[in-house]
Amino acid sequence: MNFHTRKWIKPQDLNPNQTLFGGRLLEWIDEECALYSIIQLENPKTVTKYMSEIDFRSSAKQGDIIEIGIEVVKFGTASITLKSEVRNKMTRESIITIDKIVMVALDEHGKPKPHGKTKVEFVKDRLADK
Amino acid sequence: MNFHTRKWIKPQDLNPNQTLFGGRLLEWIDEECALYSIIQLENPKTVTKYMSEIDFRSSAKQGDIIEIGIEVVKFGTASITLKSEVRNKMTRESIITIDKIVMVALDEHGKPKPHGKTKVEFVKDRLADK
Amino acid sequence: MNFHTRKWIKPQDLNPNQTLFGGRLLEWIDEECALYSIIQLENPKTVTKYMSEIDFRSSAKQGDIIEIGIEVVKFGTASITLKSEVRNKMTRESIITIDKIVMVALDEHGKPKPHGKTKVEFVKDRLADK
Amino acid sequence: MNFHTRKWIKPQDLNPNQTLFGGRLLEWIDEECALYSIIQLENPKTVTKYMSEIDFRSSAKQGDIIEIGIEVVKFGTASITLKSEVRNKMTRESIITIDKIVMVALDEHGKPKPHGKTKVEFVKDRLADK
Amino acid sequence: MNFHTRKWIKPQDLNPNQTLFGGRLLEWIDEECALYSIIQLENPKTVTKYMSEIDFRSSAKQGDIIEIGIEVVKFGTASITLKSEVRNKMTRESIITIDKIVMVALDEHGKPKPHGKTKVEFVKDRLADK
Amino acid sequence: MNFHTRKWIKPQDLNPNQTLFGGRLLEWIDEECALYSIIQLENPKTVTKYMSEIDFRSSAKQGDIIEIGIEVVKFGTASITLKSEVRNKMTRESIITIDKIVMVALDEHGKPKPHGKTKVEFVKDRLADK
Repeated sequence: MNFHTRKWIKPQDLNPNQTLFGGRLLEWIDEECALYSIIQLENPKTVTKYMSEIDFRSSAKQGDIIEIGIEVVKFGTASITLKSEVRNKMTRESIITIDKIVMVALDEHGKPKPHGKTKVEFVKDRLADK
Repeated sequence: MNFHTRKWIKPQDLNPNQTLFGGRLLEWIDEECALYSIIQLENPKTVTKYMSEIDFRSSAKQGDIIEIGIEVVKFGTASITLKSEVRNKMTRESIITIDKIVMVALDEHGKPKPHGKTKVEFVKDRLADK
Repeated sequence: MNFHTRKWIKPQDLNPNQTLFGGRLLEWIDEECALYSIIQLENPKTVTKYMSEIDFRSSAKQGDIIEIGIEVVKFGTASITLKSEVRNKMTRESIITIDKIVMVALDEHGKPKPHGKTKVEFVKDRLADK
Repeated sequence: MNFHTRKWIKPQDLNPNQTLFGGRLLEWIDEECALYSIIQLENPKTVTKYMSEIDFRSSAKQGDIIEIGIEVVKFGTASITLKSEVRNKMTRESIITIDKIVMVALDEHGKPKPHGKTKVEFVKDRLADK
Repeated sequence: MNFHTRKWIKPQDLNPNQTLFGGRLLEWIDEECALYSIIQLENPKTVTKYMSEIDFRSSAKQGDIIEIGIEVVKFGTASITLKSEVRNKMTRESIITIDKIVMVALDEHGKPKPHGKTKVEFVKDRLADK
Repeated sequence: MNFHTRKWIKPQDLNPNQTLFGGRLLEWIDEECALYSIIQLENPKTVTKYMSEIDFRSSAKQGDIIEIGIEVVKFGTASITLKSEVRNKMTRESIITIDKIVMVALDEHGKPKPHGKTKVEFVKDRLADK
């Protein structure tokens, strides 16, 4: 799994018990899945359709640094299925894992749109091909 | 299911495709589950432990009004299991449903703490008893 | 008065004295009045025109849960007059009251637009009528 | 009246009708009154106690620049009464006025604390006196 | 240098070390430069092009009040060069200074657009001329 | 240069001209530099001390995905000097570059604290050593 986006836990990310607010964490994962899918499917109109069960394994506190990992599980016709893990950057302790997140590419009418992708691509290769 | 908290979809709640950002929606549900559990369990240190699969049925757009519903599935020893649905206030169309959200009451050391509750209570009855 | 929307006081809602920031509270009340009026008047372009005097009776602190109540005072031709109270959910202590909030329904040119409503309606009845 | 703080209306300050969200405006006024009072009373624990009626005269749209004016109405024993107007910086059109905003200085127990001030002071004079 | 906009340091403005988050400070300065330039150049499409080196001299903590100062260094054909200082309102201690901030006025195609201004103007004089 | 954190430009990140707000971009860079330095220096109390001149080369619009790159320029006794570039993830077009960002590690009294580091370390190696 590749870990890219990192976050520094600041006061506005805490719940009143002074640990990382779970809702904020889900917001970050959803954003990371969206941008990852947009890059892979080359369709900016890609939305979250489904998330499998979520296990909150541990929390994080103010000042902690976390990193969000994404891995492709499979490519569908108009969808891409991802897996995500968030972990503490310094200790590598797992904070949350989601095994299956289905993102769907849409056309201008909001209907699923086939994307023609079957494997992970790197932007540098795409640019080199041009 | 009782629907309480309402939200008015504003520009800062949108994704770049101009529909409600899924991460924001999950943040709102998590907050509603947390406050509902705190009220029921009378323990301010109650955290999200688990969410079952999430199906994003439809979206919402700027200016829509949504309402968040919560229902108790069961009371555990130190936990409470909730069910949540978010729907469009004007059309009642379902936006998202989550069948099982487990919230756990913690003691001051962060360990599960039995809450002694077995059924839904209303704040007005509690106050009347005093 | 019916109390619907609930808020959990988080670090980003505090003023530097660690009590609920009054400006945040006014923001929440304004949003609740707007969405309530939009539902009643069935006009999404409904804006705040006037608020009567505001008495900050007590405050709230991090972790408190508050609820926002709204009641219709009267229906005008293009307006609706509301009354609002915010109270602590657990103790029912009153935090703020505003006796008169005038919301006005506008047409596409920003001019007051008669709404034809004379009493509170429930969304479930409207949907049943269809 | 002296106008100091200026704001540039950005997307996150709008309501779904694309005009300045009234709640945001009240939040800004409350912050300006708080900081003005803290400077005058030299007590960081100064809170909003009362606001007289609020008339929303006109609105603002994305990209507009507004400025917030404050004027002292009178000094009480533990309080200061302010008047505020917000206007469009470019056209000077009035957006909102509040005639009476009572701010109260508190001691460490949250009780009103006499501040001994009777007139507006300037920070530069205070610093020169030292 | 004229100091206008004031900010009250709140919990959401802090970094995890409980001092003012530098990124937030830069955000505030950028907004102040943008609105100042828009007022002077009478072109709403004015953007930040360049900032000279930034020296973080001291920090601020929760509850501090800061003020942002702006001064014109020179008028270019399509640009305006500003200088900015942020200081603690109560002690006048300097927090940050930036000697040169170049703002450029753009036309509707995003190209530099001559603004015809050569000196600082006051809105009240412009309005009086009409 | 390694590019890690990615951002998806959302409505709340725009200025009123509908391009990425420069202040938001500086906020993101500052956060990335802070967390990178904290990881390298293993001192959570690491703050921004200096930034060299900033050239805003191009902008970004809603829906764009950007990535933030960081590279170490040199290790000082209590400081680390970084270089940063932000670019469009899809086109690799450069948005902003900053050649020199000095971050300083502090002790509990806010004084510079030697960190003993002389080269970039990877968390996985540190954990393997234990």
